[in-house]
Amino acid sequence: MSKSLTKRSEDYSKWYNELVVKADLAENSGVRGCMVIKPYGYAIWEKMQAQLDKMFKETGHENAYFPLFVPKSLFEAEEKNAEGFAKECAVVTHYRLKNDPDNKGKLMVDPEAKLEEELVVRPTSEAIIWSTYKNWIQSYRDLPILINQWANVVRWEMRTRLFLRTAEFLWQEGHTAHATREEAIAEAVQMMDVYAEFAENFMAVPVIKGVKTESERFAGAEDTYCIEALMQDGKALQAGTSHFLGQNFAKAFDVKFTSNEGKQDYVWATSWGVSTRLMGALIMTHSDDNGLVLPPKLAPIQVVIVPIYKGDDQLEAIRSRINPLMKELRDKGISVKFDDRDTHKPGFKFNEYELKGVPVRIAIGQRDMENNTFEIARRDTLSKETVSGEVVVSYISNLLEDIQNTIFQKALDYRATHITEVTSFDEFVEVLESKGGFISAHWDGTAETEEKIKELTKATIRCIPIDGVEEEGICVFSGNPSNRKVLFAKAY
Amino acid sequence: MSKSLTKRSEDYSKWYNELVVKADLAENSGVRGCMVIKPYGYAIWEKMQAQLDKMFKETGHENAYFPLFVPKSLFEAEEKNAEGFAKECAVVTHYRLKNDPDNKGKLMVDPEAKLEEELVVRPTSEAIIWSTYKNWIQSYRDLPILINQWANVVRWEMRTRLFLRTAEFLWQEGHTAHATREEAIAEAVQMMDVYAEFAENFMAVPVIKGVKTESERFAGAEDTYCIEALMQDGKALQAGTSHFLGQNFAKAFDVKFTSNEGKQDYVWATSWGVSTRLMGALIMTHSDDNGLVLPPKLAPIQVVIVPIYKGDDQLEAIRSRINPLMKELRDKGISVKFDDRDTHKPGFKFNEYELKGVPVRIAIGQRDMENNTFEIARRDTLSKETVSGEVVVSYISNLLEDIQNTIFQKALDYRATHITEVTSFDEFVEVLESKGGFISAHWDGTAETEEKIKELTKATIRCIPIDGVEEEGICVFSGNPSNRKVLFAKAY
Ligand SMILES: [Zn+2]
Ligand SMILES: [Zn+2]
Repeated sequence: MSKSLTKRSEDYSKWYNELVVKADLAENSGVRGCMVIKPYGYAIWEKMQAQLDKMFKETGHENAYFPLFVPKSLFEAEEKNAEGFAKECAVVTHYRLKNDPDNKGKLMVDPEAKLEEELVVRPTSEAIIWSTYKNWIQSYRDLPILINQWANVVRWEMRTRLFLRTAEFLWQEGHTAHATREEAIAEAVQMMDVYAEFAENFMAVPVIKGVKTESERFAGAEDTYCIEALMQDGKALQAGTSHFLGQNFAKAFDVKFTSNEGKQDYVWATSWGVSTRLMGALIMTHSDDNGLVLPPKLAPIQVVIVPIYKGDDQLEAIRSRINPLMKELRDKGISVKFDDRDTHKPGFKFNEYELKGVPVRIAIGQRDMENNTFEIARRDTLSKETVSGEVVVSYISNLLEDIQNTIFQKALDYRATHITEVTSFDEFVEVLESKGGFISAHWDGTAETEEKIKELTKATIRCIPIDGVEEEGICVFSGNPSNRKVLFAKAY
Repeated sequence: MSKSLTKRSEDYSKWYNELVVKADLAENSGVRGCMVIKPYGYAIWEKMQAQLDKMFKETGHENAYFPLFVPKSLFEAEEKNAEGFAKECAVVTHYRLKNDPDNKGKLMVDPEAKLEEELVVRPTSEAIIWSTYKNWIQSYRDLPILINQWANVVRWEMRTRLFLRTAEFLWQEGHTAHATREEAIAEAVQMMDVYAEFAENFMAVPVIKGVKTESERFAGAEDTYCIEALMQDGKALQAGTSHFLGQNFAKAFDVKFTSNEGKQDYVWATSWGVSTRLMGALIMTHSDDNGLVLPPKLAPIQVVIVPIYKGDDQLEAIRSRINPLMKELRDKGISVKFDDRDTHKPGFKFNEYELKGVPVRIAIGQRDMENNTFEIARRDTLSKETVSGEVVVSYISNLLEDIQNTIFQKALDYRATHITEVTSFDEFVEVLESKGGFISAHWDGTAETEEKIKELTKATIRCIPIDGVEEEGICVFSGNPSNRKVLFAKAY
């Protein structure tokens, strides 16, 4: 394992690609645009999943599973949604291979096994789910339906990057059905809030909650709520979306219910999702030129212990000193690894765990054995301290909390200095090029202005912040009146 | 919800299909052969997953994720494996849809978006995983690799049945790489043992451990270890398989390693899996004409409490009596539901929870309130008892354990009376037709005999039991010498 990473300041994008591979998180596969998520990367994703799943269940949702395939006729039923995804669909057309008569030992698609109707590999599951909900919903008594699914989806992206944009990715998708517009909107907002809480309290990634403009909305939604994060290179990253779908899918699939008062109406819907893209946000928010920096709450290994010794006797002495410490830490729910490999030197191990972002490293050598001390290094600041054996457990426990808070605060400070209010388009362009980050500016509310700004600068409206205030102003581009500032940025 | 199920004795197959749907476990979808797993069914699957995942991790395995798609050229690399799955592959040939010019509002496959190389939707992942392992393995230091994946797979089955045989299903697949033949075999056997432990101690399904004959082996394996269960209709069900793959995949993908002594050799492999098919085994082993019977260890709701009351005051009184009980049960890790719906009568609720297999039902009415008692019914035997409030918590705790043991013992007794030794083929046919179950008989070891017996009776060799003994005998069909009995049965 070669440690040296490209520096962020040299080439941020290269740094990211190298880090994902060298920290054993993921790699490109033999299938165009699809990744292999390696055990260490998957262990982080599992921790994310477990926490999100808990939060979904606490808000009343249940898990279920719907088919991978969507028959073309169902896929095209909701027109806008179909339009939005048609250009990036993997399509199954045949259900059998046969021996290739011209090519011994090779297989070919059997032309006699052509499907009557093509199957789209789900890019998202609204269509298949709403065609199912149709049979589940007759009366208001059948509502709400609050279901989540953990699944893989496929969107045939032309330019892919590990975790950030891959042809296949893993995600969860919530799909809920409600009797009223208000209830559905409340659900969509609730799930945005759940995502924000997860991002900030577990990933230590500060996010801005907002609403998308019409042109950035999910295909088929009436409103898309989102959380937007800011990466260290000044680019924004959409970390989760929650859609109020109105009655669009209910109308497309003819899903009506009889209300309390005996009236028939179409059902109201939401859908919401986060994906393995969150891994990209996690990596890019905290990591540094030495490698990954992980929030302790999502780190597969929170504490690693590296013995410094000569010969088996010293190692055994260290082991008997370490065993009760490991037990005490594990009893507190802290995950610990004792790396006693004799194939690698301590220095190599230090580098490896730095690269992999293990939050706390304990080293113990002969002097520590004599003095009943441990050398404790924290990954985020790379600082070290010698700690007495008598207080080491509470020291580590506090340190993990401190690291979680410190990296969140650091990301928050970075964001605070990278939200810039501008009042002229010259300033807009200058800030975007020199400093990046979010630009807060008045916008006249038209798709035309939005599109022109995008063409000229590559910046898009990331969101209309939920906590923004109404205020009179003048559009930064057109000079037309505006009553609200929005956030622009270049984005992943 | 109509409760009346077809009786098992009338039509076992119909009983099963009705039960799966009426107990809200799963249903057929709009996609041929694919099912929707409903929240209640998925909750059972989640409990299975959690326990299996724990057992995999305890035996040193890590989770990872590999692509859904397998390029045709990788798929065909291991010839036997490719041959075995070629006839049931969903194949992606295009990556885009476009508007159909002849059909306004409809989409069609874009002929210009044809893939250069077709992608097979994974029916199993040996090919894609071994093409990846090739890059991960150079030296004996990189071994063993012990990876598991939770995923969906697709096998285009012509006749499908909910959970038992579906075009798409959920499963886990372990894929391990080893330096020696012995180590790989030990791994394959270990995972068969893990599956058996899970089936018996958690699903309460007794299984026989064995080895498959050559014709029943996994395509590409040198040996397939399996666990075989027996359903109430006398048919066997293969509940899990663990394959020793020899060096077949290493050779197909050229995966070599340098040994401790500096020699190059191909890597040894195993793979092992269980799927949502286990749900079918669980349902068919324990359930009865009233509905599902679930082992408490896998029941999403272990205890349901139904209040019997008139008016809000009585309900509130029951609620204050029930709240501390629920807390006490939950503190013991027991999942409890209090069903206070006022839209349904107690009798309706009793039927519903019987149908859904909730192991323990508590009813509490006015007399119970006066006497400080609860009426406790167990689902497996349908018997009821009145229990004093002072001992109710420990009573329930013991009852859950007792139900788990009782249903296992019942299934074990059924199996014991349905393994029949036969010495003539007449007897073989008679037992198979009259009584079903496993038939223990001598077999001459040839595929020819195996095939003829299958043609004549539809019975296959389920396995050569691991704990069988060598003994001289005469093949039940051919009269040729045999040194071991094997187990025959009709199977799912
Ligand atoms: Zn800056
Ligand atoms: Zn019988």
